[in-house]
Amino acid sequence: MSKIRVGIAGAAGYAGEELLRLLTRHSGVEIKIITSRQSAGKDIAEVFPRLAGSGLKFSMPDVQEMISCCDAAFLALPHGLAAEFAIPLANAGVAVIDISADFRLRSTAKYKEYYGADHPAPELLETAVYGLPERNRADIAKASLIACPGCYPTSIILPTTALLKAGLVSPDGIIVSSLSGVSGAGRKVDLPYIFPECNESMRAYSVAGHRHLPEIEQELALAAGVGEIAMNFIPHLIPVNRGINSTIILNPTEKCSDEAIAQAYAEAYGSEPFVRVLGKGKLPDTKNVTFTNVCEFGWVRDAHTGKLIVCSCIDNLTKGASGQAVQCMNIRFGLPETEGLI
Amino acid sequence: MSKIRVGIAGAAGYAGEELLRLLTRHSGVEIKIITSRQSAGKDIAEVFPRLAGSGLKFSMPDVQEMISCCDAAFLALPHGLAAEFAIPLANAGVAVIDISADFRLRSTAKYKEYYGADHPAPELLETAVYGLPERNRADIAKASLIACPGCYPTSIILPTTALLKAGLVSPDGIIVSSLSGVSGAGRKVDLPYIFPECNESMRAYSVAGHRHLPEIEQELALAAGVGEIAMNFIPHLIPVNRGINSTIILNPTEKCSDEAIAQAYAEAYGSEPFVRVLGKGKLPDTKNVTFTNVCEFGWVRDAHTGKLIVCSCIDNLTKGASGQAVQCMNIRFGLPETEGLI
Amino acid sequence: MSKIRVGIAGAAGYAGEELLRLLTRHSGVEIKIITSRQSAGKDIAEVFPRLAGSGLKFSMPDVQEMISCCDAAFLALPHGLAAEFAIPLANAGVAVIDISADFRLRSTAKYKEYYGADHPAPELLETAVYGLPERNRADIAKASLIACPGCYPTSIILPTTALLKAGLVSPDGIIVSSLSGVSGAGRKVDLPYIFPECNESMRAYSVAGHRHLPEIEQELALAAGVGEIAMNFIPHLIPVNRGINSTIILNPTEKCSDEAIAQAYAEAYGSEPFVRVLGKGKLPDTKNVTFTNVCEFGWVRDAHTGKLIVCSCIDNLTKGASGQAVQCMNIRFGLPETEGLI
Amino acid sequence: MSKIRVGIAGAAGYAGEELLRLLTRHSGVEIKIITSRQSAGKDIAEVFPRLAGSGLKFSMPDVQEMISCCDAAFLALPHGLAAEFAIPLANAGVAVIDISADFRLRSTAKYKEYYGADHPAPELLETAVYGLPERNRADIAKASLIACPGCYPTSIILPTTALLKAGLVSPDGIIVSSLSGVSGAGRKVDLPYIFPECNESMRAYSVAGHRHLPEIEQELALAAGVGEIAMNFIPHLIPVNRGINSTIILNPTEKCSDEAIAQAYAEAYGSEPFVRVLGKGKLPDTKNVTFTNVCEFGWVRDAHTGKLIVCSCIDNLTKGASGQAVQCMNIRFGLPETEGLI
Repeated sequence: MSKIRVGIAGAAGYAGEELLRLLTRHSGVEIKIITSRQSAGKDIAEVFPRLAGSGLKFSMPDVQEMISCCDAAFLALPHGLAAEFAIPLANAGVAVIDISADFRLRSTAKYKEYYGADHPAPELLETAVYGLPERNRADIAKASLIACPGCYPTSIILPTTALLKAGLVSPDGIIVSSLSGVSGAGRKVDLPYIFPECNESMRAYSVAGHRHLPEIEQELALAAGVGEIAMNFIPHLIPVNRGINSTIILNPTEKCSDEAIAQAYAEAYGSEPFVRVLGKGKLPDTKNVTFTNVCEFGWVRDAHTGKLIVCSCIDNLTKGASGQAVQCMNIRFGLPETEGLI
Repeated sequence: MSKIRVGIAGAAGYAGEELLRLLTRHSGVEIKIITSRQSAGKDIAEVFPRLAGSGLKFSMPDVQEMISCCDAAFLALPHGLAAEFAIPLANAGVAVIDISADFRLRSTAKYKEYYGADHPAPELLETAVYGLPERNRADIAKASLIACPGCYPTSIILPTTALLKAGLVSPDGIIVSSLSGVSGAGRKVDLPYIFPECNESMRAYSVAGHRHLPEIEQELALAAGVGEIAMNFIPHLIPVNRGINSTIILNPTEKCSDEAIAQAYAEAYGSEPFVRVLGKGKLPDTKNVTFTNVCEFGWVRDAHTGKLIVCSCIDNLTKGASGQAVQCMNIRFGLPETEGLI
Repeated sequence: MSKIRVGIAGAAGYAGEELLRLLTRHSGVEIKIITSRQSAGKDIAEVFPRLAGSGLKFSMPDVQEMISCCDAAFLALPHGLAAEFAIPLANAGVAVIDISADFRLRSTAKYKEYYGADHPAPELLETAVYGLPERNRADIAKASLIACPGCYPTSIILPTTALLKAGLVSPDGIIVSSLSGVSGAGRKVDLPYIFPECNESMRAYSVAGHRHLPEIEQELALAAGVGEIAMNFIPHLIPVNRGINSTIILNPTEKCSDEAIAQAYAEAYGSEPFVRVLGKGKLPDTKNVTFTNVCEFGWVRDAHTGKLIVCSCIDNLTKGASGQAVQCMNIRFGLPETEGLI
Repeated sequence: MSKIRVGIAGAAGYAGEELLRLLTRHSGVEIKIITSRQSAGKDIAEVFPRLAGSGLKFSMPDVQEMISCCDAAFLALPHGLAAEFAIPLANAGVAVIDISADFRLRSTAKYKEYYGADHPAPELLETAVYGLPERNRADIAKASLIACPGCYPTSIILPTTALLKAGLVSPDGIIVSSLSGVSGAGRKVDLPYIFPECNESMRAYSVAGHRHLPEIEQELALAAGVGEIAMNFIPHLIPVNRGINSTIILNPTEKCSDEAIAQAYAEAYGSEPFVRVLGKGKLPDTKNVTFTNVCEFGWVRDAHTGKLIVCSCIDNLTKGASGQAVQCMNIRFGLPETEGLI
């Protein structure tokens, strides 16, 4: 079988680096183009020394060139800019796998509310598929535009939707406290992200209205079969490079027995290669998922307050971004889903 | 004025080290005895090289000796053991400042439920004063036995009780997600705490039924003037040495305006030397409180869900343990409250 | 081709974990046995949750069983104990790949001097091959007992021997200052290795007489073609999980031009898949080699003192231990050398 | 006694923050002015929240204002700029305590060679005193311009000069490998210093020709009583916030017995409040000196190579910069030398 020819736009950030790490050892892919405005002209060895062996070189972004030589295009670009690339690529029949936020939200109103601008390509929203394989595998397989989920949303949607769909927890009163490593902020050269400002410290941020909130609410509402959900999502910045830990506090319904939870998870994820259900009373640790495409979670019942607490971990750059993008590509092009990811 | 003669039992752990750090530069104190079963006979330079200059030496614990030469005794011992020391010391008129959990709970039933043993000295519970100066200063000034609050509780009780007392938030449905540095686990030689097991990782633990939970509930219920509170408290272990970050999610009452919150905090803490109220929309960062006795917090209203979110930071070893103990000692012996703490 | 059947003795430490990480995704290997005295009976999910998918289970060490079902045996055991396993395994024709120190030194006198005991299997020393593929590939291919190099030695021997062999540096007056992450100390539950004792700190240790010193001296002397070398090797403990950084200070000979250095490295390592020569004026960073089997180095001439300074990085668990062991196995069994390592 | 009125120019960097941390709790000082071009107009609470209680406010640098209200001026400015401030301040009789590199080197040629510019104030070099109290206390006491040593130099000069002066080690062939925390790079917003680029990594840099090299050589040559010294100084960047660890490799002379070393150190530092000599076979750890003004060191003889290895630790921001500056101020103004530093 001939290899899938891929291009990566915005390859010089952390999501781009992770894509390159995964794709350079993927047996079914040929990387044709990697672009970066800032690093154009540089050998990859200058930007990511650990990938020196690949012999790749950054070029200036050029959509026509990408169209001419790629079957699939990964967009690791800022929101807004990603849509500018997605439109011509999708129109030309290149499979677009977008890691930005541009096509995650179905509502252009929510997009405007949270991203502060009109949606840059509303005409593509209908065709965009939310790239969470464990929930949308069939649609991903035939999608022309795949909107890969955000990192926090992936860690929350996977464990929560299975329970909502089974009617075991209420869509009301959901509260999530999440912790993220610093690579989640991107390869951002800004005072709050220099080493001595992050190290040996921890802080909450965007505690009301983080941009991932509407995405989480959208997907949970879909799973619950309700129109809207209003929930709390509170992220924290933690001095580790990689990893997300989400603690999800849920209101169980009457039928939410331990067995029902176990069964709902077994049905939803029993055969999933990248979901590890730890079970009752077992709590995950980000070190067990970093550098993997796995989402791992366990749960605890609090008899005292009646809450169900689910704790979930992913690597923000792998299952939370680039690994999931590769998983989507594998599905879209009919390759084994775990190829390049184990 | 003559100096206060103090002894420290269990001085070889992290709370003991922090006590020594603070007391060796405290102008009103003379350290007479430091004890440790494991380190007895060792010069302090062997155990805590940074304190070498003090010339202190660890001895075996000996309550009679402590009674004979100390005005005040700090107990940095495991729960259960602390009570064994507290009884004879208190009976002999030595001011006992206990950093353990033995005298924090008023209910012996709760003690048994959470600590798995009968309370070791129920007869002393009546006289014990909960050593949170910002709420119990007058009682601390004349106490014979001061039960210093736990680290997590300090970070939660300070910002929450002021709102409960003012009737601005409901005692129902309180949810707290807390993050702690690894020194919070004590100087514990155990596999989960060695460097490669903690570093670059983060995990929730004891998500339903941490031992600090009944203490937090007790103090919040007292402030709210209700019999009992049932809340969620979910701690996480984070790879930093020191610091606690607590995110507190509250249900505001109708009268909970921004002005009312600001006023409640100003009244409660306006003249407190160790409380820094950041105000609305401002979130704390543990690096701004580590190695200090300060509790710092700010808050955000989530219009979307109606919740009030308060974020609070302390240093678990200072305001969360030994700094607060010294603050209590200063109050108890009529010294300036900030002596040795700034 | 049928798969190589392998066993791992001492699989519950960090070198064992890294072996398992590499071998569970190696296409040419079937893991038949993993042993650990302490973890016998446990599923791998309990000990290394990230490897849960492998379905492996720890058993008690049993050499006869290993002989009965393995083509190759990896020994990730303490020195002394490794030899006890190696003797019957080698005698039974199982290819032994030893990660311990037992067969690295050719001199039983040096073994006794540095390890404090008589050599446990002097009769095997003649047949043991020092498992550094870039220098001993041909011998490794037919070895019955492969003694994998230590972590520090690997980082030092690779960049230094090429220069010694080419006569570009003197074997006299070599000084090496090395930095290692904490996993280098093993999965050791001991006070100096708990998180708060290592984090935010750095210290030199074993500055005269580290156990890796005679191994380094032996290999450098061999490359230089001299009987003995006496050098300084000064290791430091650094708060990272993985990685070694060695700074090697050398006395160049008269013919040591920049071109000669470049040529010596090109000849020695130009076609090596796991050596990345950065070149003159370029310094490595451990983050570019962690989780890879690569040794990366660059050099600087100090006109001022005449010294040649070579800086070298590896991952102590991969190229410094388990990755190199897998590389040796690939060579020994005629598999592509990079299989399972990229 | 009236308080010393001080100003701090360039107070918004890490050395400035450390000065503020120390001076705000110093009983003999009144901080009159803190300046910063970038932070002018901001309350200190915005820039350094932990110092909020001081009520200070940043202003634009204004030398005349500083002259009008200050007895002493601390310059925590980049080199070159510091001299511009120093000239008018010194001329006006304000005691200048310069933390920059401008007045450390006696040779303007060396300044030009290492800093790439003509010396900005050669006329002041004669009056400048090198601010290392343990060696130049008497001169500091009457100096009008104190050039505080660099961080690396402090860690190296203290343990080495005592041996050179006593003739116990040769000035030839000195090699130093130093490790520094990231705050040593300043509060610099640059890609190599953001958290994910530094964390879990370590690298050598400026291995031949670091700017601190001529300063170290100058002071060692002075102590040795020789004209010039050429040595190797190799710094490394380590992922901790604070701390320097220097490993110093020396050639002992014939009279360098263990007793002679101990005696030389006892004579040089026996009564020094901020030097902790650990003794033979005892190695320092940066965690024992961080947040203190102490330099701690021990040594080991390598019988094997004949080298003497001295390992030394300081906090780069305290003894390596601002703590030492305060110590100099105390000496200069006749205050107890440890005031504000313990």
